[in-house]
Amino acid sequence: MIPGSETDATHDAGLTSFVASANEDGCDFPIQNLPFGRFRVEDEMDWRIGVAIGDQVLDVRRTELLQNRSMNQFMRLPRDARVAFRNALSEGLREGSPHRKRFESALIPMSEVQMGLPCDIGDYTDFYTSIHHASTVGRQFRPDQPLLPNYKWVPIAYHGRASSIVVSGEDICRPLGQVHAAGDQAPTLAPSQRLDYELELGVLISRPNVRGLPIPVAMAEDHVFGLALFNDWSARDIQAWEYQPLGPFLSKNFASTLAPWVVTLEALAPFRAPFRRDSEDPQPLPYLASESNTALGQGDIVLEVWLQTERMRKQGETGDCISVGNYKDAYWTMAQMIAHHTVGGCNLRAGDLLGTGTLSGPRPAEAGSLLELGQGGKKPIHLSSGESRLWLEDGDTVILRAYCEREGYRRIGFGECGGTIRPSKLGVISSS
Amino acid sequence: MIPGSETDATHDAGLTSFVASANEDGCDFPIQNLPFGRFRVEDEMDWRIGVAIGDQVLDVRRTELLQNRSMNQFMRLPRDARVAFRNALSEGLREGSPHRKRFESALIPMSEVQMGLPCDIGDYTDFYTSIHHASTVGRQFRPDQPLLPNYKWVPIAYHGRASSIVVSGEDICRPLGQVHAAGDQAPTLAPSQRLDYELELGVLISRPNVRGLPIPVAMAEDHVFGLALFNDWSARDIQAWEYQPLGPFLSKNFASTLAPWVVTLEALAPFRAPFRRDSEDPQPLPYLASESNTALGQGDIVLEVWLQTERMRKQGETGDCISVGNYKDAYWTMAQMIAHHTVGGCNLRAGDLLGTGTLSGPRPAEAGSLLELGQGGKKPIHLSSGESRLWLEDGDTVILRAYCEREGYRRIGFGECGGTIRPSKLGVISSS
Repeated sequence: MIPGSETDATHDAGLTSFVASANEDGCDFPIQNLPFGRFRVEDEMDWRIGVAIGDQVLDVRRTELLQNRSMNQFMRLPRDARVAFRNALSEGLREGSPHRKRFESALIPMSEVQMGLPCDIGDYTDFYTSIHHASTVGRQFRPDQPLLPNYKWVPIAYHGRASSIVVSGEDICRPLGQVHAAGDQAPTLAPSQRLDYELELGVLISRPNVRGLPIPVAMAEDHVFGLALFNDWSARDIQAWEYQPLGPFLSKNFASTLAPWVVTLEALAPFRAPFRRDSEDPQPLPYLASESNTALGQGDIVLEVWLQTERMRKQGETGDCISVGNYKDAYWTMAQMIAHHTVGGCNLRAGDLLGTGTLSGPRPAEAGSLLELGQGGKKPIHLSSGESRLWLEDGDTVILRAYCEREGYRRIGFGECGGTIRPSKLGVISSS
Repeated sequence: MIPGSETDATHDAGLTSFVASANEDGCDFPIQNLPFGRFRVEDEMDWRIGVAIGDQVLDVRRTELLQNRSMNQFMRLPRDARVAFRNALSEGLREGSPHRKRFESALIPMSEVQMGLPCDIGDYTDFYTSIHHASTVGRQFRPDQPLLPNYKWVPIAYHGRASSIVVSGEDICRPLGQVHAAGDQAPTLAPSQRLDYELELGVLISRPNVRGLPIPVAMAEDHVFGLALFNDWSARDIQAWEYQPLGPFLSKNFASTLAPWVVTLEALAPFRAPFRRDSEDPQPLPYLASESNTALGQGDIVLEVWLQTERMRKQGETGDCISVGNYKDAYWTMAQMIAHHTVGGCNLRAGDLLGTGTLSGPRPAEAGSLLELGQGGKKPIHLSSGESRLWLEDGDTVILRAYCEREGYRRIGFGECGGTIRPSKLGVISSS
């Protein structure tokens, strides 16, 4: 077995927890999952490390398994140590645990805590790993050459803004920016009229590498802590005007939303999807190829986008699922992202975030953005409320969800990654 | 007077320090300068805040003016507080200071300290503020349209990598990356053969803004702590193959070098150069225009690039000055960079770094990169050692220098920002 795809007792479908809610069908956080996050209670200043189990958060410090560590310090532990810690959590939380009393006293209902970003994020890099996204978007700009010549060779990426990454639930203010309508002589400063979401997964880095020492692709997953849902909000009109020649800037940096729970690679071990290339595609260059990369691939993770308009919310409706995709359709794997990122000598640090880029599947209904679903603002999406959307409107809430399912294993979920669009604060500028 | 261009007693040309080396002609660090940096002595773990004076570093903590503060905490103080602190430093260090004994005991020779990065850098953004650089580089790619249509409206920028920013003096390892020669069917992984420097100034942010609340251009300089020399090393062959459609990535993120000393805006007050636009250029949009922006402009800062080859070093030669430019030729000002960066709601934090982008002047000899000086690898630069260069070779040291001069004022300098190219570590990857 390739390390990373091995399953052990923590993955047993028969394993149950003394936390009853964790054993319910459809629960995102059964004992087989054990995702990490940071939480606080009431007026606390500092974040504590927590583990989700059913509808409870386990206060890790109070289990006495881990003392006085920040999440970033914990993340950078070697993989062996993180696996041992997962085993201890699994044993402590299971039905019949001899440590039940201690663990039970460390539980706090999820409804009573505030979740924060899972860690301090140093640098944030966004990749472009979905060939379907790249092709569909490329077709809108270059009908004769949807995919640029480098795409099938280079795991394309760019650096994003870390300071404006917020945790699920925080409001997103519609950004101002320069927009330039075709035919107009001059651009104007205006609130974006083409506001979009991007369905992504965030890869959180565990072990750092030294600057100048690349991480070989075969060892890359040792440097991954886990995955979390990620929404890279995008203002398409601002992007179209600003992005040449250095890439997106204001169109992306007003905010990105990260889910509070990080599902570890250990929890994902049963749900890997082998790496593949179509026969017409080139094989990856040697520094992007390894036996483990082929065996582990991306991840068989179902990805959903839900949209709840303000009207739906007032009527008590939970919203519509507007697309369903799967991470296994990505062209580049996590290991390839890391090997490429570091091959020139760039150093990754614990807590760094690598976005996968918009994860769109091969079929139109699997698109991870409105830009694709709506064909660049041409084909409205019709909602169950009778409303339609080309782009996001004020009051719209976008919620990303994801889960893994496989015969013989407990379903594990990623929780939610949501945010609501609020009106632009144009007054701040015009009155200055 | 517009705040920011006002001079006071700390700028008096007649002012001298009891530190004799600070009074010598041509000294970068007279008492009129007082730049900030972080240093440590011997085996210390933590960085201390220091101020350069002549050939000495003032250990700020030992002046008893500032207790227990990190540089980032100090940087985020309101401007008034920073000005008051500058005044106290100036009074303490001047000839005849009543506090001479206390300040003298806080001095350490620069030769005995290790300088670090001036602060913890959160996010790093690189702008593209030199229209001469943008035009010259653009002409190489698009002879018929050197400048893209957005350039004169949008202060173009992209996010860079913070983790690999190193302090002056650290070696730079030649990066590996994918390169694709014209006509070749496939790219290869190879050490960059077109390694370049970029002469920039780094703008260090002081006061943060809240996400969603833009900083108006008229108040933008209140959010600037100061300027430091910055070299954004670039691998042109990697860049050419990777940069479409999302901008530079591996071609830049292997390393950038920041000088240890930050010259404050207060020290630069006498050396401002009014903002101007040629008659054929559009006026900036309202959110990028203010009375203070027009009055303060960029800065009248002379910028030099020095190249010392390994042969020169062995022969005891200090190297050649291969270009001289001036920051006042930039198209966009610091205030415009900040106003644009935040107009969509992006939050800046104390210690964030905004690079100006390569600062090239209107004349060919004022170009801030080899890409421009050598016309894209076509016209070698001839050196005093008899060697020539199209691109940087292993063993080459690039040193950036800068200073301000004006009749009636003491010259102030920025110190040095240097780095030496070391051979690529290809073996690390090929043996994996």
